[in-house]
Amino acid sequence: MLALAGYPLGQRFRFFDTAGGAVAGHLAELRVGAYDDPEALARFAEGLELVTYEFENVPVAAARSLAERVPVFPPPQALEAAQDRLAEKTFFQSLDIPTPPFYPVLTRADLLEGVERTGFPCVLKTRTLGYDGKGQQVLRGPEDVEGAWSRLGGPPLILEGFVAFERELSVLAVRGRSGELAFYPLVENHHQGGILRKSLAPAPGLTPRLQAQAEDYARRVLERLEYVGVLAIELFEVEGRLIANEMAPRVHNSGHWSLEGAETSQFENHLRAVLGLPLGSTRVRGHAAMLNLIGVRPDFARVLGVREAHLHWYGKEVRPGRKVGHVNLRADSWEEIRARLQRLEWIVSERQ
Amino acid sequence: MLALAGYPLGQRFRFFDTAGGAVAGHLAELRVGAYDDPEALARFAEGLELVTYEFENVPVAAARSLAERVPVFPPPQALEAAQDRLAEKTFFQSLDIPTPPFYPVLTRADLLEGVERTGFPCVLKTRTLGYDGKGQQVLRGPEDVEGAWSRLGGPPLILEGFVAFERELSVLAVRGRSGELAFYPLVENHHQGGILRKSLAPAPGLTPRLQAQAEDYARRVLERLEYVGVLAIELFEVEGRLIANEMAPRVHNSGHWSLEGAETSQFENHLRAVLGLPLGSTRVRGHAAMLNLIGVRPDFARVLGVREAHLHWYGKEVRPGRKVGHVNLRADSWEEIRARLQRLEWIVSERQ
Repeated sequence: MLALAGYPLGQRFRFFDTAGGAVAGHLAELRVGAYDDPEALARFAEGLELVTYEFENVPVAAARSLAERVPVFPPPQALEAAQDRLAEKTFFQSLDIPTPPFYPVLTRADLLEGVERTGFPCVLKTRTLGYDGKGQQVLRGPEDVEGAWSRLGGPPLILEGFVAFERELSVLAVRGRSGELAFYPLVENHHQGGILRKSLAPAPGLTPRLQAQAEDYARRVLERLEYVGVLAIELFEVEGRLIANEMAPRVHNSGHWSLEGAETSQFENHLRAVLGLPLGSTRVRGHAAMLNLIGVRPDFARVLGVREAHLHWYGKEVRPGRKVGHVNLRADSWEEIRARLQRLEWIVSERQ
Repeated sequence: MLALAGYPLGQRFRFFDTAGGAVAGHLAELRVGAYDDPEALARFAEGLELVTYEFENVPVAAARSLAERVPVFPPPQALEAAQDRLAEKTFFQSLDIPTPPFYPVLTRADLLEGVERTGFPCVLKTRTLGYDGKGQQVLRGPEDVEGAWSRLGGPPLILEGFVAFERELSVLAVRGRSGELAFYPLVENHHQGGILRKSLAPAPGLTPRLQAQAEDYARRVLERLEYVGVLAIELFEVEGRLIANEMAPRVHNSGHWSLEGAETSQFENHLRAVLGLPLGSTRVRGHAAMLNLIGVRPDFARVLGVREAHLHWYGKEVRPGRKVGHVNLRADSWEEIRARLQRLEWIVSERQ
């Protein structure tokens, strides 16, 4: 989606992946190599103007090694801050951004002490490589403690107090090379089995106060990290205030609605940012919704038969639990969106 | 632009061009061959689901030869009707669609007789291979007749009466494989040296009556040709009524505004049509304008600094008179569009 947004800006692309067969290879050159192979990285970087990434588990060492040869945006320190849940929450704390209570867990004794402080329910998570609900266990009572400890494969872990949130939101923010900032409106996210299922933009009932709070958090993060590109922060809404859950230093699934729903998509704005071009308007065109296609290939004709539905099929092999595409809806009112979204969810679920 | 619109629909592409180096080769497979080489065409068609084109001077024989192997949309008879100005105007006449008066010119005597009937000014044109104002000569008085005859290289020609039009408009229409129809609003076009310079969508002051007349003409053409895909008809507005000038059986420069200005772009709708998918909404998002970049590479940062400007750079080598990109503007009112368009024209012209 970055490349599709970048061709009209006169850009050319080269992709790097650790496995062959990445679908991006259909629309630009694809290099396959290991993140820990400096020569493969050097050959990849040769002749490039800059490098960006859309996967937050790129090893920081690989990003730093590339950054010695060519500008890398977002900066490697953003990867570093986002990859370790403990570093990430400590970073939020240092910026006075509220987070759920958390405790580092290096030993079984740490875990027991942490549970003592948070009470149940609480969530035990691996510190790294978690995504789409992977690497976490909810502890509902004492009987869950041992199982979670062994299922997560031991330390380093982090124990987080459970937040009785009203809803999950996210903010997408962009910072250009000159420091210019832009913010998309807060989005309401719905997960299923730990995987983002749908996003509504702007979040229904969004108040200017809540939006201002989100932008304030995002601004602090962007400026501290000297960030360049699109950044997503996932948030909990609790009694009209926002608590930061985690951040992703990249274009984000909860921003996919922007392809048709915003004046400028997150993909185009990410590229404008890293290229040092002026940022585009983040204005919403009415209301939008995004529905992920997870492990299912729906009937395209039925999907496109829904009024103002836009299909984004990734061309990946369908596998259970794999995000293989999404559908965006755009309309002038929430009522229209709701009715069409229901119909779309029916079309998609029927095929599973 | 067709490929960029088609990847999200899960499509893959193979391009055919008569010269190497086509920019489409960056984003899909490019085959180079001659239109009159049946073997090259056969190898090109192998494994394809269907063939479409975005250039109306593809020889009809090449389209027919491909159509023996694989569906070709728009159908070759549409190419045939559009390639010869005499056939095209006769075709419009057969559908009761008004055209400027015209006379076939096969001999010098035909030319003199035609001029006698039309009076001056009138326009002498080659019957085939004209585009962007090429292959035509305006005759303002008797002194222009001989020069035009020799400059156009002799018959077959067509002489057309000059129409004192108020403005040039075009209608973009789509017909799906099932016969489903969709129409974009009439667009106002401004030419410069015979080349489309800018389009305003919807045409300022557009009345439902004028739109209905345009749709009525387009419907007759689409249905008579059993057309599939996007069709453009260029029209003159004369005292509140429409006269057909010419048609193009393909996505059209005067529809490029639809990339950001319409709910579904002409490119996506062309693909939906040829793939047998439901057509997308042709609803306009507010107002839009398109400015062609002709023989100039503007400063991208300055272009993108114009509010709600969207750059579409084709990646082609810049040559005088060559269309190398366009900029789309979108806004909620004409007033906003006008002010931004002026600024944009300044940014673009200054660099020429």
